[in-house]
Amino acid sequence: MSNLEAKFARLGAENAPGQEVRQNADDLRSVMRGDILPGIPVDFSHGDVDAFEPTPGARAAWEEGFDAGGAQAYTEYRGSGAIRDDVAASLAAFTGAPVDPVDELIITPGTQGALFLALGAVVDRGTRVAIMEPDYFANRKLVAFFGGEIMPIALHYQGHAPQRGPDLGQLQAAFEAGAEVLVFSTPNNPTGVVTQDTAINEIARLAAEYNVTVIVDQLYSRLLYSGESYTHMRACAERPKNLITIMGPSKTESLSGFRLGVAFGSAPLIERMEKLQAIVSLRAAGYSQASLKTWFHEPDGWMEDRIAQHQAIRDDLLAIFQAAGFATACPQAGSYLFPQLPELVVSPEVFVRLLRLQAGVTVTPGSEFAPHTAHSIRLNFSQDHMAAVAAAHRIVEMVERYRA
Amino acid sequence: MSNLEAKFARLGAENAPGQEVRQNADDLRSVMRGDILPGIPVDFSHGDVDAFEPTPGARAAWEEGFDAGGAQAYTEYRGSGAIRDDVAASLAAFTGAPVDPVDELIITPGTQGALFLALGAVVDRGTRVAIMEPDYFANRKLVAFFGGEIMPIALHYQGHAPQRGPDLGQLQAAFEAGAEVLVFSTPNNPTGVVTQDTAINEIARLAAEYNVTVIVDQLYSRLLYSGESYTHMRACAERPKNLITIMGPSKTESLSGFRLGVAFGSAPLIERMEKLQAIVSLRAAGYSQASLKTWFHEPDGWMEDRIAQHQAIRDDLLAIFQAAGFATACPQAGSYLFPQLPELVVSPEVFVRLLRLQAGVTVTPGSEFAPHTAHSIRLNFSQDHMAAVAAAHRIVEMVERYRA
Repeated sequence: MSNLEAKFARLGAENAPGQEVRQNADDLRSVMRGDILPGIPVDFSHGDVDAFEPTPGARAAWEEGFDAGGAQAYTEYRGSGAIRDDVAASLAAFTGAPVDPVDELIITPGTQGALFLALGAVVDRGTRVAIMEPDYFANRKLVAFFGGEIMPIALHYQGHAPQRGPDLGQLQAAFEAGAEVLVFSTPNNPTGVVTQDTAINEIARLAAEYNVTVIVDQLYSRLLYSGESYTHMRACAERPKNLITIMGPSKTESLSGFRLGVAFGSAPLIERMEKLQAIVSLRAAGYSQASLKTWFHEPDGWMEDRIAQHQAIRDDLLAIFQAAGFATACPQAGSYLFPQLPELVVSPEVFVRLLRLQAGVTVTPGSEFAPHTAHSIRLNFSQDHMAAVAAAHRIVEMVERYRA
Repeated sequence: MSNLEAKFARLGAENAPGQEVRQNADDLRSVMRGDILPGIPVDFSHGDVDAFEPTPGARAAWEEGFDAGGAQAYTEYRGSGAIRDDVAASLAAFTGAPVDPVDELIITPGTQGALFLALGAVVDRGTRVAIMEPDYFANRKLVAFFGGEIMPIALHYQGHAPQRGPDLGQLQAAFEAGAEVLVFSTPNNPTGVVTQDTAINEIARLAAEYNVTVIVDQLYSRLLYSGESYTHMRACAERPKNLITIMGPSKTESLSGFRLGVAFGSAPLIERMEKLQAIVSLRAAGYSQASLKTWFHEPDGWMEDRIAQHQAIRDDLLAIFQAAGFATACPQAGSYLFPQLPELVVSPEVFVRLLRLQAGVTVTPGSEFAPHTAHSIRLNFSQDHMAAVAAAHRIVEMVERYRA
């Protein structure tokens, strides 16, 4: 196998959300038990923007962008200056630390684009990168693509909040052993764990001490459930010199179809990211950028209502999985559930495919998030409430069918 | 300088189109001659989508995409299946060879995105890549970013059509010396040279013989001037096994603000490109993809009219530059002119900045396209006709001011 073949073999995307349509089901017939389970199909691999519609005004903002013509079509690579002014002010207020719109912010094609550019700016052949496990699947793939070396850090996610969070002993050991970069999501994807105040401050302090670059993916930080608190590392008193925060309106705000994200933080890294953007895709789609004008300007009560609706779905699904005996952490934020399934007679990957074929339920296999979480499945529960509940019952029934 | 610093130093984007707003002009005062030249500012660094508006129906198609909701927001990474069906049929008819919409086509965030993915799929550390000079500036930057080695091939572009085209002797020597990839644009950016039938067939034959992967950037192939002919390599009888063709609606069709491109060709390479897309930006913005439904379905006479209008601007600008004695090839297709300026008392880079400051004219420095073309400037003449003519006269007047 050539280097390139090996590199792309590691980038397997066939289990990635949305890619299931490319799978062939012929080989499943021999292991199949029972009939089709009727019900409305639910694709838990991503949020349903029909059930939770895009922010009010996002379409009109796009249309204004289109009408603005060339000025909106051809922005700077880091995005329209006027829109960066507005977004920087919102993000400064939200995170509790200033953001310079000229030098410290870049608009990207989705938060995926922001992650790619941020890791591309700091990871080269041999760069050691601390990665939490489990965490968003692209983190590990990106590090591998850029030739970096992964140093895994355990994220404790079962049990109650005080026991949860990254293993700080392992983190310090990784920094000690030469990690130059740390990338992690909080709220964590796939578990919904929010790294708490004490831990965020300690990670920031350690990163400053060891001069580690930190990339924090805060994509879901606005969808915080009642009673939970959130600490933004960029507002910590002691924090690393090189710190990039990533957010975007694709999830809570349902603007996924616009492909918008932002990265903000250390100016020299933002400059590198823009240089990379110049050869990757030039800029986030110009007209789409205009829809960022609605971000953080949602109508009064809109966000509270959206959070309450998600919390209700979370609680119903959690109750169903816990009643079935699946170890499932209660997400503190975001719209992911990560139930652990019991031992089955088929492999987890086959079970996920059977689930889609027999129960009309699409989930993402746990093996995408860490080597040791293959027995879990990830559900994005930003779905029609009733359909999601029915689908969760079908998952339980399917587990009973295939239980070892 | 660390490896990463060196890597990003090579990625300088400050002269790239649209980035001029980030330049500081203070250092120019000491060399400045004469006053401001009045006139409507013209930004020749990219096409003016206000002068040449987006294809009729593109906005309505986007709105239909938005209304379609989740199905359009979350497409496969390679793009919506239904849209690929339609686009593949159009591209097969246009290029004269079949395109399988399932396996041989990917929709990308602009043609820049297509180029990035295509080169990322085939260039690794040490891969030798034949690059024409001059050619689109990102080609060289992309090869450097992926760690490849550039093997330059001269593109002869002055004089009349029969003398123009790539130096096939150098090309064969590069293949002989181990080039694994060839990437080039035809129509050439920045000169408008169309590589002719005999040369395209010979390149295809040589690439097949030496098993070289070919990436052909045909972005401007629809904007072909009267009397010119175009040969699509993918329709050649003898052609390389690994061949990717890149096109998009950003230029002639003025859909730049949607960020859409396509790459089509060898299925294993398209598969790699999709895997890479999965970690780069997931997909071209879902709602934007819907606007591809208008591509190749423009109203009767629309494309002929657009070509005629560009040809009229081309002829006027060419006459102005040729009268001033600037060696300027007549573009056979596309909307770029690449006049060579006489010796000046300031460096070409400084002249380009003075042009912007004193004459309200933005152009791209020739040094972006090849090491030896620093004395040329590139103009995208897809502009308001009268404003472009006036701006061309100001360029000539500025050259007279600073002539050595």
